[in-house]
Amino acid sequence: MKHTKKTLLALVIVLFIISWSSWGQKDYKLWLQYDKITNSQIRSEYTTAITGIVGLGNSETSKIAVKELELGLNSMLEKKLEVKSKLEGQNTLVVGAQSALNPELQKELASHITQINEEGFVIKLVIVDNAKHIVITGKNDVGVLYGVYSFLRRIQTNKSIKNLEITESPKINLRILNHWDNLDRTVERGYAGFSLWNWQKLPDFIDQRYIDYARANASIGINGTVLTNVNANALILTPQYLEKVEALANVFRPYGIKVYLTARFSAPVEIGGLKTADPKDIAVANWWKDKAKEIYKRIPDFGGFLVKANSEGQPGPQNYGRNHVDGANMLADAVAPFGGVIMWRAFVYSEHDANDRAKQAYAEFQPYDGKFRENVIVQVKNGAIDFQPREPFHPLFGAMQKTPIMMEFQITQEYLGFSTHLVYLPQLFKEVLDSDTYQKGKGSTVAKVVDGSLYNAKLTGIAGVSNIGNDLNWTGHPFAQANCYGFGRLAWNPYLDSETIADEWLKCTFSNDENFIKPVKEMMIKSRETVVNYMTPLGLHHIMDTGHHYGPGPWVANLSRPEWNPVYYHKADKNGIGFDRSKTGTNATSQYAPEIEKLFDNVATCPEKDLLWFHHVSWDYKLKNGQTLWNGLSLKYQEGLDQVKEMQSTWNKTEKYLDGERFKEVQMLLEIQYKEAKWWRDACLLYFQQYSGKELPAGVEKPTQTLEYFQSLKFPFAPGN
Amino acid sequence: MKHTKKTLLALVIVLFIISWSSWGQKDYKLWLQYDKITNSQIRSEYTTAITGIVGLGNSETSKIAVKELELGLNSMLEKKLEVKSKLEGQNTLVVGAQSALNPELQKELASHITQINEEGFVIKLVIVDNAKHIVITGKNDVGVLYGVYSFLRRIQTNKSIKNLEITESPKINLRILNHWDNLDRTVERGYAGFSLWNWQKLPDFIDQRYIDYARANASIGINGTVLTNVNANALILTPQYLEKVEALANVFRPYGIKVYLTARFSAPVEIGGLKTADPKDIAVANWWKDKAKEIYKRIPDFGGFLVKANSEGQPGPQNYGRNHVDGANMLADAVAPFGGVIMWRAFVYSEHDANDRAKQAYAEFQPYDGKFRENVIVQVKNGAIDFQPREPFHPLFGAMQKTPIMMEFQITQEYLGFSTHLVYLPQLFKEVLDSDTYQKGKGSTVAKVVDGSLYNAKLTGIAGVSNIGNDLNWTGHPFAQANCYGFGRLAWNPYLDSETIADEWLKCTFSNDENFIKPVKEMMIKSRETVVNYMTPLGLHHIMDTGHHYGPGPWVANLSRPEWNPVYYHKADKNGIGFDRSKTGTNATSQYAPEIEKLFDNVATCPEKDLLWFHHVSWDYKLKNGQTLWNGLSLKYQEGLDQVKEMQSTWNKTEKYLDGERFKEVQMLLEIQYKEAKWWRDACLLYFQQYSGKELPAGVEKPTQTLEYFQSLKFPFAPGN
Repeated sequence: MKHTKKTLLALVIVLFIISWSSWGQKDYKLWLQYDKITNSQIRSEYTTAITGIVGLGNSETSKIAVKELELGLNSMLEKKLEVKSKLEGQNTLVVGAQSALNPELQKELASHITQINEEGFVIKLVIVDNAKHIVITGKNDVGVLYGVYSFLRRIQTNKSIKNLEITESPKINLRILNHWDNLDRTVERGYAGFSLWNWQKLPDFIDQRYIDYARANASIGINGTVLTNVNANALILTPQYLEKVEALANVFRPYGIKVYLTARFSAPVEIGGLKTADPKDIAVANWWKDKAKEIYKRIPDFGGFLVKANSEGQPGPQNYGRNHVDGANMLADAVAPFGGVIMWRAFVYSEHDANDRAKQAYAEFQPYDGKFRENVIVQVKNGAIDFQPREPFHPLFGAMQKTPIMMEFQITQEYLGFSTHLVYLPQLFKEVLDSDTYQKGKGSTVAKVVDGSLYNAKLTGIAGVSNIGNDLNWTGHPFAQANCYGFGRLAWNPYLDSETIADEWLKCTFSNDENFIKPVKEMMIKSRETVVNYMTPLGLHHIMDTGHHYGPGPWVANLSRPEWNPVYYHKADKNGIGFDRSKTGTNATSQYAPEIEKLFDNVATCPEKDLLWFHHVSWDYKLKNGQTLWNGLSLKYQEGLDQVKEMQSTWNKTEKYLDGERFKEVQMLLEIQYKEAKWWRDACLLYFQQYSGKELPAGVEKPTQTLEYFQSLKFPFAPGN
Repeated sequence: MKHTKKTLLALVIVLFIISWSSWGQKDYKLWLQYDKITNSQIRSEYTTAITGIVGLGNSETSKIAVKELELGLNSMLEKKLEVKSKLEGQNTLVVGAQSALNPELQKELASHITQINEEGFVIKLVIVDNAKHIVITGKNDVGVLYGVYSFLRRIQTNKSIKNLEITESPKINLRILNHWDNLDRTVERGYAGFSLWNWQKLPDFIDQRYIDYARANASIGINGTVLTNVNANALILTPQYLEKVEALANVFRPYGIKVYLTARFSAPVEIGGLKTADPKDIAVANWWKDKAKEIYKRIPDFGGFLVKANSEGQPGPQNYGRNHVDGANMLADAVAPFGGVIMWRAFVYSEHDANDRAKQAYAEFQPYDGKFRENVIVQVKNGAIDFQPREPFHPLFGAMQKTPIMMEFQITQEYLGFSTHLVYLPQLFKEVLDSDTYQKGKGSTVAKVVDGSLYNAKLTGIAGVSNIGNDLNWTGHPFAQANCYGFGRLAWNPYLDSETIADEWLKCTFSNDENFIKPVKEMMIKSRETVVNYMTPLGLHHIMDTGHHYGPGPWVANLSRPEWNPVYYHKADKNGIGFDRSKTGTNATSQYAPEIEKLFDNVATCPEKDLLWFHHVSWDYKLKNGQTLWNGLSLKYQEGLDQVKEMQSTWNKTEKYLDGERFKEVQMLLEIQYKEAKWWRDACLLYFQQYSGKELPAGVEKPTQTLEYFQSLKFPFAPGN
């Protein structure tokens, strides 16, 4: 963590180069840069095919769609396109929902439109009266808007627009951001500044960022946002705040984004004046019904509630001797008349339960299968612990046939280097989505659970814990924007390839130059394994420092609840390291389908990437590459560090392809990432070495600080805590 | 505080108009917009006179000066000017410190340069070898930089650059921003988001905003910044943080800005491991000496410490039976070898002192006159209470002949509507600076105390409590940028006219069109009296709601310390209202020079704007306009509200002169200001009416809510608290 004077001086000098940009704010524009297309041949294809825009429809959403096309195309094509409200001429881009099209176009497109759902779109080249037009349409205006962003993305990525014939629908109903934003604007696990929601100035001051936020989210298909932290404050449900929520809902509505809130289970007591929040108490149920009525009167399309109950100190039905079903169904009944949903989190573990924390959510929720109301969806984190650099998929996926299950990913990097480390998360998301649960035989992937196809779930959803804050660049790290983007794209279609997503994002954000794209894309793809290597290789998990989770803290053993301590998770001792979750241990493996259970249970077949998640293994255990566990573990830490070095070297060659400001930002952040990767390697190896009693193998650099030094580091103001 | 659905709908519709700007970020550029000059005749004068730039000097500061000229002129003149490093041709703009000029130029400018101080500049048309050049020079590079900004301002404001012959020096040594920023990035009394200082990513990540901050401050002559809150945390003095402070100092240095820190008096105990922080203890003194050495090793031009001691719970020398002189001098000795200064705040009042709070700072500090070290300067708030909409000047100004006194203004609007109300503060600042203390006879203005001319003070200073946060537009309200700007300009020259400053700022920020400038400037000038009218007319003060100071709370009477309660300040009863500080009361008037004492002491001569500050007056007292006090007070509240309405009407006519985004932002904020002004009027009049027992006079609208309603309002998450 030490830097030299020389480095700083060099830094200051380089800064002069970047300080002259016109207050460089490219960062702020995310993936909607709409830079001029530099390839003149491609640009000419576009300008020939698009000579004007025909905007049909009068809703606010229609106007947004047309304006976005104007903004994007005028900028990328460097040409002012005329916008008309009637079809005439040829080579126009026609934009409008099915009902707004003229009969001839309706006929041309009817069969395509039947193939899409309510949010889907069609983009098709049609010929009417011998004139070619590209039509973007859908059943509803919001589908058209999605089609517009899809079309713009084609242009941004320099794809051909010849003979277009695209029908596309989102595969998941609820595509939602979870903001862990508090009413004082701090953000739990937020590393990009503070909350966008300026409650003090709402409802009357509408910050331009609210609009830009909605635009960016609509562009990737997000259709819902939970404004408040799951560790909830009941005040958000008072008229004073609902008035403000309503103002945000009004801004987001034309962008197809519904507003949701977190419901604090004890709200009837805290703001309702009741003596209890018992879900079986009629006064309580009525209080929630009235509250729902009050909210829907203000916000007719209010999405519903997200609830964290009886989890990490949050109140819930168990406080009154009731269970999760009682609690969720009571709330579900309150919002059902208005079409609302309850997203009930399965992230539970009890300090009174000595059982393996990894087993508790499954143990508690699986038996409830089929008992929830139709408008309840159970929100399950991707893994059984808590957003680690790597976790095996959560055993609840596929294990509840009659209950809608939604995915909760974390876009903010609580355990992955905050907004300082470049880690491309769609790689992590895809690993989980592609995992085969075998719950309905081979091919029962998590994606099929999430999109509802495995058990024909009507209600489907995917949530991402937002990494957005009020930093100028929204996400703290320029590359953390890719995680926002990737989450949205996967929420739209969980079968998309993470490499394709990286390609799109890079082109929309920086450049279409393949000399830039190829190495940087490769760097992004590798970055996820890199962070696993330097933080938690071979299935290690939750060994971050306590509370803030910043940096390594494998030694932490003094927290009041055993399962809050890193030592609980790695269980290092003289004999070896790892958490035995096999039959000889906590038998957590039994929560998976038999095929997977067998695979994980046997140390020989258990994927090495999950080895120490499921097994306590001796220091001399032979890894597949022939190394002992100690040597292999040590070399993994070193490999992670070397990979960051490689990322730096890749990035340093990109300067000519982008603006100096973003180039320099990423360069500075990679330097921090390198230092912190080194910190991870040294602190973890020094600590584990106490137990292994072995020398570091050849190829692993000797730490330059002592274990005591690392243990002495304190970060009282680490963000997001 | 209620708004209608209709208003919101209208709002949403208008928003569509503004949402298409290119991610509108004009706000971010402050007064450095460098818009193209629209008057072609004027532009042509400039392009004729400036055909190129000659940049002399190689320091970082010199490079910044030249780059800023390029950025500004190329943009305003729409012409790419060539930059050379040697004088040739004609009609060039020559930029460089005296020592970098060629002998001929040196000779031409020698007599002018002798007229300026170390930070001053000369801008002069010179003719050498029959060729005309405009030279911007100074004794040092930073003076040249100030000259460059001054020159650019001339262009921004479309002033003539013919026959220039300007010599200018700042009149005050220390021109400093006080950031009340905490290490967790909350900002005490901050209403523009959160702290710019991202301690987590420092020292290695240099946010572009640090550079933009430095640029903006240099452009108005700010030369120091106290990074941390006066309610200090000792951790800032640990190596972990000093490394980060060093990084910021490195960024700010070439812009002529020194970094200062707040020193927590108990730091030797908290981070030094000592048992005491007694300033007379040698170990304590040595600890501070070592700490100073450590800091100066990192930051050779470190400015020094700002100290809030024995004030509102902060530790100080009195905890050890010592006094302010003991504390200040001990710290002064620690930084003296390195040229550092101690800014010791006089903002003290004790809960153990039953005396009028307004008298305590004078009573405690005046007797210390002449006892402080040479490098101590006593920092005094503009008034004796606490940054109210209006206060008479602080009696300490002019009362300490042998002690440097620096002014502390508050740019952030703690008691003036946060960042939601448009209040042009230079009007307030000037009222104070222009006040005549009579301490050395007529003409002994506060400005002369502050610039040191009254008593020939060597060390002079002026501090502004910053209103800067990480909001996109820096200050929360577009017009709050004018308060930043105005503070800087007055710190440079306290004799500047506030109207001139408004004129400059408006032109640099929005437009040179007189049809825009004239009414908007008038609106700004009036805005200060407006806020006094609807909050605290006729000398009322400190009747804001408790803690957060948001909105009216004249009824608050339950706080533990008497002088924290609004009732302490207004003393309304059946007989009348106001704080008797005359001879019949606390005799606070006696702290002023006899001429002023007499003026304030006599209710007949006391300026009516300060009436209730100094006198308890009956409800039937006849004001100069013939109204009774009750009627006059009521009408003042109404007048304030009417004035806001007038501001709205003025602003609504400006749409065509500026971008839609800033137009709309101000429009929304004025609407909030109007609602809150109404809230102030209604709440205060209903409350005081209980005592006056009189009807509201004709012309004052009847409140539509009850006093109980206003008293019931709670704002647990009001910012900055």
